[in-house]
Amino acid sequence: MTVTQNTSFFDQHFLNHISLDCVVFGFHDNQLKVLLIRRKFTKEWALPGGFVRGDESIEIAATRVLQERTGLDNIFLKQFKVFSEPERSKRNPIVQDLVESGARPDLEWFKQRFISVGFYALVDFSKVEPTPDSISDLCDWKNLGEVDSLILDHNQILNKALETLRLQLNYQPLGYNLLSDRFTMPELQRLYETILAKELDRRNFQRKMLSYGILNKLKERKTGGAHKAPYLYEFNLENYQKALQNGLYGGW
Amino acid sequence: MTVTQNTSFFDQHFLNHISLDCVVFGFHDNQLKVLLIRRKFTKEWALPGGFVRGDESIEIAATRVLQERTGLDNIFLKQFKVFSEPERSKRNPIVQDLVESGARPDLEWFKQRFISVGFYALVDFSKVEPTPDSISDLCDWKNLGEVDSLILDHNQILNKALETLRLQLNYQPLGYNLLSDRFTMPELQRLYETILAKELDRRNFQRKMLSYGILNKLKERKTGGAHKAPYLYEFNLENYQKALQNGLYGGW
Repeated sequence: MTVTQNTSFFDQHFLNHISLDCVVFGFHDNQLKVLLIRRKFTKEWALPGGFVRGDESIEIAATRVLQERTGLDNIFLKQFKVFSEPERSKRNPIVQDLVESGARPDLEWFKQRFISVGFYALVDFSKVEPTPDSISDLCDWKNLGEVDSLILDHNQILNKALETLRLQLNYQPLGYNLLSDRFTMPELQRLYETILAKELDRRNFQRKMLSYGILNKLKERKTGGAHKAPYLYEFNLENYQKALQNGLYGGW
Repeated sequence: MTVTQNTSFFDQHFLNHISLDCVVFGFHDNQLKVLLIRRKFTKEWALPGGFVRGDESIEIAATRVLQERTGLDNIFLKQFKVFSEPERSKRNPIVQDLVESGARPDLEWFKQRFISVGFYALVDFSKVEPTPDSISDLCDWKNLGEVDSLILDHNQILNKALETLRLQLNYQPLGYNLLSDRFTMPELQRLYETILAKELDRRNFQRKMLSYGILNKLKERKTGGAHKAPYLYEFNLENYQKALQNGLYGGW
């Protein structure tokens, strides 16, 4: 429908109308963080994203984009929703100015309507090397509570990813890849609390988590703290995988 | 990328590269059924689907398509996956023949690559009036076990919808809209068994279902059967809605 006459790099390499956006979560210093990029010209913050090549599925495209932004090869990505409001890709006036003044004809392509497939990923914070894309000058982690206004509907995409995670906390395990191999119960609780954006009762949390059978309690305690040293745990990966498949309460 | 020079009806009205497919489930005579259409020329069976207009979100487009196929206005539709393998929309040779012989130039548009958003819906079988679209000559229910080869990757889309439903049976209630307002425990069990494609133990099923608190047991029994008349149940809609939100086992 909206066929541009401009045969830019983007025209030649990517499918019209289709984009993808990635919500990449990491956990560090007891904070849930999200990976963002900053656009070169407008200095607006955005989710890392990209477009789909002729020979790619949307999953392959998302994997390529995240490999470029993080340096990581085997990121577990999950599609969670398609964002397609007709008004969603109305461009920022500054970008439109750049196109219309002739300063950046290659940005013309960005003015078409895009339907974007949202993915989220949970990654090991310490292994990521944030790298901006060609239209950005910065790629960095932000604490979830400190994310301001993002471009287009990217705040909505981020919120929907969080909402999906929150629902999943009710029936699937979470934490592998986000926590260290060995962690304390308070660290696991802090991760849940950050995602849920509310405080949880310590004793109820511990009782519920232990009842799922996805944790191994280790003999070692965490050292170095001022208080009584808490026990260390690790995930029982066999049970963790089963619970991902059948839910925390088992299948039919 | 694949820009067609042909300005057919489809070109003028729909976004390139984007389609949607709907897996519509109904339950009747103790059978889970799926709504299919038959293509006029090739007599192949397919899932009902369509394309996205310039002023539509993908949800609005899917609602329009299903309104046209079923006559129903307020269908609860759920996005479950985007299907985007580059090879998925390689056309059937018969359709290609029709286009290339010049007999149906309006079908040219169908030869481009499509990325399809999969939706599923659970509907009241008795209220649906199956209606074929402009390129089909039949729209009808098929028992799930009797679905043969469908066009393109539609078998895969159907299977993925089923897999999604099966997972949801582990943490969300199901049955409202599919069963009559009042139903027996064996009818509910039969619905679960059809979706899971396996038999369930009668007593365990009843115990587990009752433990969720989403059923009201009625005083009346079902009449007319040869055996001892089973009790009738209805869904407790308040608890049913809560369980849809927080899961059958409650939230954090």
